[in-house]
Amino acid sequence: MHILVTNDDGIHAPGLLALAQAVRPLGKVSVLAPDRNWSASGHVKTLDRPLRVKEMPLEDGTSAFATDGAPSDCVALAICNFLGEKVDLVVSGINPYANLGHDVTYSGTVTAAMEAAIWGLPAIAFSLDSPKNHLTLADFQAAEQVARQITRAVIQNGLPEGNLLNVNIPFLPMNQIKGYRLTRMGLRVYHDKLDSRVDPRGRPYYWISGDSPTGIPERGSDIGAVADGFVSITPLKLDLTAYSLFPELNQWEWDQEIGHPLLESA
Amino acid sequence: MHILVTNDDGIHAPGLLALAQAVRPLGKVSVLAPDRNWSASGHVKTLDRPLRVKEMPLEDGTSAFATDGAPSDCVALAICNFLGEKVDLVVSGINPYANLGHDVTYSGTVTAAMEAAIWGLPAIAFSLDSPKNHLTLADFQAAEQVARQITRAVIQNGLPEGNLLNVNIPFLPMNQIKGYRLTRMGLRVYHDKLDSRVDPRGRPYYWISGDSPTGIPERGSDIGAVADGFVSITPLKLDLTAYSLFPELNQWEWDQEIGHPLLESA
Repeated sequence: MHILVTNDDGIHAPGLLALAQAVRPLGKVSVLAPDRNWSASGHVKTLDRPLRVKEMPLEDGTSAFATDGAPSDCVALAICNFLGEKVDLVVSGINPYANLGHDVTYSGTVTAAMEAAIWGLPAIAFSLDSPKNHLTLADFQAAEQVARQITRAVIQNGLPEGNLLNVNIPFLPMNQIKGYRLTRMGLRVYHDKLDSRVDPRGRPYYWISGDSPTGIPERGSDIGAVADGFVSITPLKLDLTAYSLFPELNQWEWDQEIGHPLLESA
Repeated sequence: MHILVTNDDGIHAPGLLALAQAVRPLGKVSVLAPDRNWSASGHVKTLDRPLRVKEMPLEDGTSAFATDGAPSDCVALAICNFLGEKVDLVVSGINPYANLGHDVTYSGTVTAAMEAAIWGLPAIAFSLDSPKNHLTLADFQAAEQVARQITRAVIQNGLPEGNLLNVNIPFLPMNQIKGYRLTRMGLRVYHDKLDSRVDPRGRPYYWISGDSPTGIPERGSDIGAVADGFVSITPLKLDLTAYSLFPELNQWEWDQEIGHPLLESA
């Protein structure tokens, strides 16, 4: 069992070290992560410039590689056999903030796991729902245990191809975590606002500002589970097709501007 | 009907002009697009630096705005009322390459439409399955007609909240396009390879290279429809939850390392 550990916060993030230590008892571990923070970067693949990779041991002295590419690039490098050995499982994180609801499409932590799933590998994204700004390794103590248990379960039970798990862990001591919940993606509520300013030369510029996203803590959702003190495990799939819309779209009225406006659901 | 037109190829792309011209008969049109190419950028939201926006008319002399932000930032700016008037519909493209199968998570064209859907707006991403490298406005002639017809249909029929359409148009003259097909996301086959090189100073660097992605042209998939000469219309949703995995995950064996390993699907 060869496990790739990556993240979107960069090689020096304490969450990466926590995750590496979490999965080390479960197999051979390789760490390959970005050399800087890529938060809110989305699903990036770097094709227009070459990538550098350098060895850069983790704080506990174990071997690791840092690249100037994005989180998904780390996965792509490993899948293209950069490590000289096939990868069997990809784990990403532990992100110091939650990745709940629609966060998943922005999240470098989750899109790294998606990249692995696209290539047919089982993958898990781990995030800690921390309210704090600067975390230390000690803050990840419970999350590390959770990550180990869930990764072990994935190794034991397997994950169907094209799927990944998005795990969010409440920021609580181990004995206060209430357990696990299987959840659906919830509904984030974003509070973006435009903050228009004028620079010293009189030219306008704009910040996308506003409060951090909140969420509707519905029962059954990832947001609800974490709010209730549970570890949220959301199985995700790569197929975004809204199959339920097919009947409705088939009944739409269409102009006849085009020669063949026939809707044919095949 | 106030329509926002954006893209990921930048304000000067002929596909943006084609799309603006396509939808101009359908309502009031505002164009706000990145000032450079953001292809394969994924779903980015720029929070760590301010954005600049400048007026930059399109080639046909109509008003448009260019920003140094990402495609999703264009949508966020418009939703945060940068244009001074509420947006009712977002159209993105016309991308000069197809966005089929798993391309959608990487694609700036599609993630711009996703950003709109997250905010509850109907949105459509348009891509042309062109084999060519450099396209002119004339190359988008058929795609422009298709984009107008589909946008009109969305305005007439409405699109349920949280959904978007991903449209791929074959690179054919209008009279050779066979019609429309409602499709599901197909399976891309990526051919990434690692190209390891050594720089003039003896240090290694790496290109993610290999042939362009191909696809399995299955019947019913976006890839199959475009290969058959049809316009592919794939309804997408923002909820990536793999509901079908719930029963299986509920039956997994779990270690008892944690106090409460109870799986509770709520």
